Amino acid sequence: MNSKPDIVTAAVLVIGDEILSGRTKDRNIGFIADYLTAIGIDLREVRVVADDAVAIVDAVNVLRAKYTYVFTTGGIGPTHDDITADCVAEAFGVSLEFHPDAVAIIKERLAKTGGELNQARLRMARIPRGAELVANNVSGAPGFWMGNVITMAGIPAVMQAMLDEVAPKLKTGTKLLSETIRADAKEGDVGTELGVIAKAHPETIIGSYPFIDEKQGPNTNIVVRSRDAEKLAAVKAEVETMLAKVKSQLGTAR
Amino acid sequence: MNSKPDIVTAAVLVIGDEILSGRTKDRNIGFIADYLTAIGIDLREVRVVADDAVAIVDAVNVLRAKYTYVFTTGGIGPTHDDITADCVAEAFGVSLEFHPDAVAIIKERLAKTGGELNQARLRMARIPRGAELVANNVSGAPGFWMGNVITMAGIPAVMQAMLDEVAPKLKTGTKLLSETIRADAKEGDVGTELGVIAKAHPETIIGSYPFIDEKQGPNTNIVVRSRDAEKLAAVKAEVETMLAKVKSQLGTAR
Repeated sequence: MNSKPDIVTAAVLVIGDEILSGRTKDRNIGFIADYLTAIGIDLREVRVVADDAVAIVDAVNVLRAKYTYVFTTGGIGPTHDDITADCVAEAFGVSLEFHPDAVAIIKERLAKTGGELNQARLRMARIPRGAELVANNVSGAPGFWMGNVITMAGIPAVMQAMLDEVAPKLKTGTKLLSETIRADAKEGDVGTELGVIAKAHPETIIGSYPFIDEKQGPNTNIVVRSRDAEKLAAVKAEVETMLAKVKSQLGTAR
Repeated sequence: MNSKPDIVTAAVLVIGDEILSGRTKDRNIGFIADYLTAIGIDLREVRVVADDAVAIVDAVNVLRAKYTYVFTTGGIGPTHDDITADCVAEAFGVSLEFHPDAVAIIKERLAKTGGELNQARLRMARIPRGAELVANNVSGAPGFWMGNVITMAGIPAVMQAMLDEVAPKLKTGTKLLSETIRADAKEGDVGTELGVIAKAHPETIIGSYPFIDEKQGPNTNIVVRSRDAEKLAAVKAEVETMLAKVKSQLGTAR
């Protein structure tokens, strides 16, 4: 690769007491991580904070200054504990207003599903001034995109639909390619030599992930990641050569 | 309750590129959340950061200043990308040294499982000066407890064993009790009235969690949380009375 790769970064901000109490197990972090990696955005940080205005506003402001995008999940429903829109507006220093398109979407939805347009449901039409709506084809009430902050629902199916809506509009970078090499060796047996390879290739990311194979016992996956396909292939080959050598010395070749 | 409840807080710091790339799905956050809630520690924040020294050191220092305890997971294995011990030492401004007990544990383990005490495995015996070891009865190599920071493995079974080791030594607070009330109503239908109750009881935490019941369709769980059993029961009763009233008005009582 001759040109410098484009790097686009992101953070995820998960908002909700229910995640921190353990009542709800987050299923969004892993999904968004896979999704962003696949489209060429590097997820660099995740934070989970409570339904607490100070914590949310602080996190939004820190993360939006550090990363290309911030994706928030949770806290945009119709109840008093849904304060994400308020907090994003506060973080950007703009007012929170009823968005006519959001009101129309919620009305249209209610015409189909029944239910009245009460104060609680109207709460979901309050959008920070200047934000663009993010369509929700699952349950109607939209998310929104304000500056570099994309605010999505916490319910996985709704979050996923919203991510599909925004993905085509996101700036993406050169994809981080990866290769996984099953070491068929214990991590401790190959760690020293792997460190030597990692040190020789600082521009390539090498990760080592131990796991238990039910038949063979302790094993290791080595993951090499690079934005450059040639470098990736070269380092992968180097790792494979190293593994063969170490295992033959240990007499543990499988 | 007459005396002020004791509140003990915590943060979890998940360390690892593999979580942010999506390659590995975190299973520790939810487990630790449940565990801490059960023993009377409030999990207030979670961060996930990459295997990046600056990011780890910053997060350790911010979180340990804000919360009673910080629990880290990941990055204490034998390979070059395992830099958590280095970072905790740096955060506390102490040196990282071979801990004789950790060396002995690793040697003893190797005597049973085979394998040599090489540079990679010795890496796992490097402990910040002044830290106490946290036993690992699953795979030997210990975690450690430095100041208010408890550093554990990333592999769930090992992390869980380490948490069991430290739990009896943790300071705990008055437990946050909770009651879940199945609303048998849509969140948007009860949100306004629930907000009135929440506003009247600022010392009680009321959460509203929509879910889809396969037979009945959209439904809501209302969770009331308090450290005071009497207040909890009173607010629960108030929510139940409200639900009955709203559903009878809507003609949707089930």
